[in-house]
Amino acid sequence: MTLFDAGGGPAPASSPRLRLVVAYDGTDFHGFAGQRPDPETGAAVRTVEGTLVAALARVLRIEPDALGLVCAGRTDAGVHARGQVVTVDVPTEGVLDLDRLRGALNKMLGPEIVVRACTAAPEGFDARRSARWRTYRYTIVNRPEPDPFRARYAWWVPEPLEVAQLRLAADPFVGEHDFASFCRKGPEGSTTVRTVLSSRWLAPGLEEGVLTYEIRARAFCWQMVRSIVGTLVEAGAGRRRPGEMLAILHSGDRSHAGRLAPPHGLCLWEVGYEQ
Amino acid sequence: MTLFDAGGGPAPASSPRLRLVVAYDGTDFHGFAGQRPDPETGAAVRTVEGTLVAALARVLRIEPDALGLVCAGRTDAGVHARGQVVTVDVPTEGVLDLDRLRGALNKMLGPEIVVRACTAAPEGFDARRSARWRTYRYTIVNRPEPDPFRARYAWWVPEPLEVAQLRLAADPFVGEHDFASFCRKGPEGSTTVRTVLSSRWLAPGLEEGVLTYEIRARAFCWQMVRSIVGTLVEAGAGRRRPGEMLAILHSGDRSHAGRLAPPHGLCLWEVGYEQ
Repeated sequence: MTLFDAGGGPAPASSPRLRLVVAYDGTDFHGFAGQRPDPETGAAVRTVEGTLVAALARVLRIEPDALGLVCAGRTDAGVHARGQVVTVDVPTEGVLDLDRLRGALNKMLGPEIVVRACTAAPEGFDARRSARWRTYRYTIVNRPEPDPFRARYAWWVPEPLEVAQLRLAADPFVGEHDFASFCRKGPEGSTTVRTVLSSRWLAPGLEEGVLTYEIRARAFCWQMVRSIVGTLVEAGAGRRRPGEMLAILHSGDRSHAGRLAPPHGLCLWEVGYEQ
Repeated sequence: MTLFDAGGGPAPASSPRLRLVVAYDGTDFHGFAGQRPDPETGAAVRTVEGTLVAALARVLRIEPDALGLVCAGRTDAGVHARGQVVTVDVPTEGVLDLDRLRGALNKMLGPEIVVRACTAAPEGFDARRSARWRTYRYTIVNRPEPDPFRARYAWWVPEPLEVAQLRLAADPFVGEHDFASFCRKGPEGSTTVRTVLSSRWLAPGLEEGVLTYEIRARAFCWQMVRSIVGTLVEAGAGRRRPGEMLAILHSGDRSHAGRLAPPHGLCLWEVGYEQ
């Protein structure tokens, strides 16, 4: 089998940039980005990017460094993705069979990493810079006992949460705010002002005690969703009033927000583009 | 903390038999039953029973052999349970606090094994002999690509399945039949006649491409559900007619049935009792 035949989904040779939609179970990865060695042990750290780049390089028989991978959201260690978007530049003069490329990648990487779509990127398209918004979902199991089948993908909160309070507390995040209280500091001089387009708890599904929070923003600061969820849960448990959320935002002081929700309940759900 | 205080749910000292409802992720267990060593390596094989008994013995400070554990369904390696029922005889003269016992077990075993309920068993109650029926569910992901978040708990079948054919093929299993064609032989002279109370595909949920088969029977033969599901899937894929199911049943010949569906899609869902 060669990937350079004409086939189901040929990419024009003039546009060697591919757009991949990728889902992954983040449990056993040290986050999406990087292929750097562990500073303590010197051993290579296992990342989604490193794993994906190695597979692409092997399938396409090119150097990993040549791919120039860019992603829409650099998820942290343990965070999952259903709709991560990635662009890669494939230095080839031939015509790629993209359906076969996708199949070969999924055979190597699935079911831990699954390439859901693989298409030729439009002219000038960049997974990060072209993104209009990102949507994250955070899942909580709110029951007295944990759930063996949700344990990898949801935060177990045994104390009872009031959904009405959770909903009230979620509202104030919509709009343009300085999220300094709800994120870890980035590089010196970088802004923590972000625009949240929606912030809501989804209507309950069939399974009792499963709560899902969804937030959409143009972009997010580091650990912003987990910090917001951790604070919302304190409101749901009655330890904070929903009205406090705006005050915490205005304080700009991270110590006023709640504890960070654990990474395994978080999932990069969808990324929106104009094209 | 002592478990022998009077407390939330005291068991009468005259009935030292407990009834536990247990959920578990079977992925990393060699099935429910047994604590026997591996015949090849001599190392102890990790089972749900062995893990549960060790925790009970540690919490109650008694010998593991004294517990006389009995379960409703001896699930195979890799099979999960949501509603396994277990009875254990606790040789103690004190009054047990069953809520605390449950909490202590879940702290040690969760979220891989979760004790969902722990109550005093009624007089003469036995998890296996008192059971009136067992219900198993089998989940299939029927999409061109695997699903990272369902991979542990569902069988990925990429070829398209016709739900109407799956439904037609499921019907003939209801009733009393000799299931010799759909199970592995038990001990010499044991019967393979079983009574199936219902056999159906559940109405689809919100998630596209997730198919769930549910079968309820008074009791099951070894590997019966996986053999039925493997054969149903061949009907759904168009490689068999639904009308063949009765003929396979009547043949009594295991080579006429389909291949065995993998264990990880199977879950012991619920066990029914009169009391």
